[in-house]
Amino acid sequence: MAPPSPCYINNGAPQNGVVLPVEMGTVSPQDYSHLLDPDEFRRQGHQVINFIADYYARMGDYPVHPSVSPGFLRRQLPADAPSHTELDAFDAALRDVRNLILPGLTHWQSPRHFAHFPASSSTVGALAEALTAGINVVPFTWAASPAATELEMVVVDWLGKALHLPENLMFCGGGGGTLLGTTCEAILRALVAARDRKLADIGSGRIGDLVVYCSYQTHFAFRKAAHIAGIHRDNFREIATYRDDMFALSPAGLHAAMQADVDAGLVPLFLFATVGTTQTTAVDPIRELCGVAAPHGAWVHVDAAYAGSALVCPEFCHLIDGAEAVDSFSMNAHKWLLANNDCCALWVRKPSLLVAALGTEQEYILKDAAAEGHDVVDYKDWSVTLTRRFRELKVWLMLRCYGVEGLRAHVRAHMRMAASFESMVKADARFEVTATRQFALVCFRLRLPEKLGGEKSANELNRRLLEEVNATGSGPYMSSAMVSGVYMLRCAVGSTLKEERHVHEAWKVVQDGAASVLRKMERTYIAVD
Amino acid sequence: MAPPSPCYINNGAPQNGVVLPVEMGTVSPQDYSHLLDPDEFRRQGHQVINFIADYYARMGDYPVHPSVSPGFLRRQLPADAPSHTELDAFDAALRDVRNLILPGLTHWQSPRHFAHFPASSSTVGALAEALTAGINVVPFTWAASPAATELEMVVVDWLGKALHLPENLMFCGGGGGTLLGTTCEAILRALVAARDRKLADIGSGRIGDLVVYCSYQTHFAFRKAAHIAGIHRDNFREIATYRDDMFALSPAGLHAAMQADVDAGLVPLFLFATVGTTQTTAVDPIRELCGVAAPHGAWVHVDAAYAGSALVCPEFCHLIDGAEAVDSFSMNAHKWLLANNDCCALWVRKPSLLVAALGTEQEYILKDAAAEGHDVVDYKDWSVTLTRRFRELKVWLMLRCYGVEGLRAHVRAHMRMAASFESMVKADARFEVTATRQFALVCFRLRLPEKLGGEKSANELNRRLLEEVNATGSGPYMSSAMVSGVYMLRCAVGSTLKEERHVHEAWKVVQDGAASVLRKMERTYIAVD
Repeated sequence: MAPPSPCYINNGAPQNGVVLPVEMGTVSPQDYSHLLDPDEFRRQGHQVINFIADYYARMGDYPVHPSVSPGFLRRQLPADAPSHTELDAFDAALRDVRNLILPGLTHWQSPRHFAHFPASSSTVGALAEALTAGINVVPFTWAASPAATELEMVVVDWLGKALHLPENLMFCGGGGGTLLGTTCEAILRALVAARDRKLADIGSGRIGDLVVYCSYQTHFAFRKAAHIAGIHRDNFREIATYRDDMFALSPAGLHAAMQADVDAGLVPLFLFATVGTTQTTAVDPIRELCGVAAPHGAWVHVDAAYAGSALVCPEFCHLIDGAEAVDSFSMNAHKWLLANNDCCALWVRKPSLLVAALGTEQEYILKDAAAEGHDVVDYKDWSVTLTRRFRELKVWLMLRCYGVEGLRAHVRAHMRMAASFESMVKADARFEVTATRQFALVCFRLRLPEKLGGEKSANELNRRLLEEVNATGSGPYMSSAMVSGVYMLRCAVGSTLKEERHVHEAWKVVQDGAASVLRKMERTYIAVD
Repeated sequence: MAPPSPCYINNGAPQNGVVLPVEMGTVSPQDYSHLLDPDEFRRQGHQVINFIADYYARMGDYPVHPSVSPGFLRRQLPADAPSHTELDAFDAALRDVRNLILPGLTHWQSPRHFAHFPASSSTVGALAEALTAGINVVPFTWAASPAATELEMVVVDWLGKALHLPENLMFCGGGGGTLLGTTCEAILRALVAARDRKLADIGSGRIGDLVVYCSYQTHFAFRKAAHIAGIHRDNFREIATYRDDMFALSPAGLHAAMQADVDAGLVPLFLFATVGTTQTTAVDPIRELCGVAAPHGAWVHVDAAYAGSALVCPEFCHLIDGAEAVDSFSMNAHKWLLANNDCCALWVRKPSLLVAALGTEQEYILKDAAAEGHDVVDYKDWSVTLTRRFRELKVWLMLRCYGVEGLRAHVRAHMRMAASFESMVKADARFEVTATRQFALVCFRLRLPEKLGGEKSANELNRRLLEEVNATGSGPYMSSAMVSGVYMLRCAVGSTLKEERHVHEAWKVVQDGAASVLRKMERTYIAVD
């Protein structure tokens, strides 16, 4: 790596030992009058495009995860923003991005990134973001940018149909969808709508009696959302899951929990079911769970943040059987559907409940078309936030340019690579697959040779294996999960640049790591024996 | 405008009367394997850059607000996403953006857009978004992208210092800041932190007793946030404001309201003060308000969503005198500080209170550096959301390339234009300025000629004036406010492409509109007289 470029002029203070007067080499204030000059935008824009293309071309050269210590970058940057700026500030800044910033990032687009569910990227997704930022509208009401609102209404139906969602969650079937940043906000919206509906029934003073439900496998985002919405910490129920059930939420367990709460004078409010949990991609049985929740009038939300993208393939549709009974459904197109960060889609069966909870009655400074009874919506009334990004442009371009079949091919390519990895794990008797693979995540671990001890040692062995695998720098980057006391490695196939060979190379590193940690452990065992 | 390009191939169904077999002119699935090919990215990226540059160059040709009816776009788009796609799908899609989408947008970057506070754009802001989308990392913990977290910690201090915030809100002074999407989320975070602190004192069952305070002028985002956080709708206090106080929140009014609540057994929780309200840019007196809130242990949040950008100029610093006593402070760099949508900055005096309310104890799949006691943070524990965008890159590039003096020059240029507009209003005896101008927003209206009736007629007259002004298409686009029963027009100077001449042209249109509505009203008056 080249050394960082010299620090820029900063209030005339010493930088790299040289004191520069603020006037020297700086641009005078009057030169800032054309901050959106088309010609300058064009020149610098082409630089940025080349910068990104070069980054993709050289992605393989970066270690996925940087070998840096906390504070490494803070120490290199001055304590204040520059007062004046250099003549070629933009070029210098791009050099700094290349030399200072990129080497300190975790490269989510690396084909050797297997640690998290992907932050899915595509040419169209990235360029749609650029276009969105360039156009820079804020479509909080229909009037604030009519084409944006209407495009959003169209593409959430397009996307919902492409994912085989039940029609009653789409505008064409009396429901409706919207695009937002994150699943966390989607959950919060659904939860507040559910809470308000329930409190309207039982009395607004009883917020402390409301209870919410999920499984042990549920992402912590739900606990956080429930806490934000004022649900008492004691009223958060996590139902136990078991390997024999493929870590799915048990309808019997949910039934028992809800009944116990009712018997105790509490009120079941909300069931959070997941299709594709974070740790092992477990799938909760939607139809049965809806059957349990219905007699209690509990809202059912399905979170398919990761696995929702797979629903574009008909072979996965059975996983959401019974979804016509859910109240809301969300997925992240930014995870596995080529829509660069961020893009969550939320659908609800009764949009009026969202508007009742999140709508703003106050007369606003420009007329609401929706408020006037037209067949469009004002998305500010569906949202926690007012300011919105023009995300619909991205989803539209993505569907327009790749087509539904293109998205299927993309998902299936990752499924094939994950299956390859899984079969290599299965073919090596030292390893076991620790959770049934349902999508493109493989959970696995080294079996502990019998003579080396019990479950605790097995977890330790696999902890060391992960360290060994991630320490190579030029190798893959994986993560771990701890499920029912079992520590396992997670190999998530998904970044767009991934090819079959990366999966094979990763497996080779895992095998080498295994040989190494087993050897070390046996040595220790012999030493203490 | 050219007619829309033909609709694309959609499941082989008839499009524009022609039935195309799905095979014809489509790309086969296997061609989707390289969705991030550097060469294709480069080619299409340069197209997008040229597209945006052309858009800026032709901005003046678009009516600011489109003359369209609800449903205009939905009717033109097919009901389903295309199954397969065309060979030149990207080129065709860009043509559709130009011919279908752009004509239906409200052009926030138009120099004739005066309706809302600006969605501030700059070359660096837009290109930083492109770069961010291209790099596409998700820095939810330090480990998930170390350079991103550290850059964020650096730039929030840079920005805080540039805005002359008290040091105790910055990392360098024991506080800390973060970047997020919107003020709405910033308020919600602060509110939940305040709520949890208070409930820890008084007992978690007393959420129904908590009361929050603001002025009549406060943005509805606060009411929404309070509602989401479980504050009872009856416990939302809006203190009356008066023109003689420049519509600021009255410390005496606040004191009385808090005391009345305490006397009624309720608990003052949170004061929401604004520097630069949406309707008239009123400034609440921070020092005095903190003095009132302190004895009650109420959290004080200052929202400077719009006017916070002006604090980059020393001449505005007195407006936040006493801010060292506030608990949190937020502003939107995407409004007036050249950081394209979205970018809100939030600072808190005690980050540990945010983490206590929003942190997640659960062991996560990769180690938290912050949890291990290093001098960095895991921003997931400061947030409602987990997924985050790499916004710090944008703020860093903006400060790096424009410098603090550059930002000052930008703000002052708009201040001068607003002053020009204001002086033209004042020089025309038919008009009056209806709220003291403090930043780059001018609130004004036509005086009603005495013989034409009272206040109600004055409002009607000005409603018609706004309609007349906005109806020109080639003219300015303004908005209105209703404050203490007075309807007024809002002329917000702020979009980056604005020049002095646009302000003069806008005033000419307002004068012509005034002549026209006065003439019409007089005719009606004479007719009924």
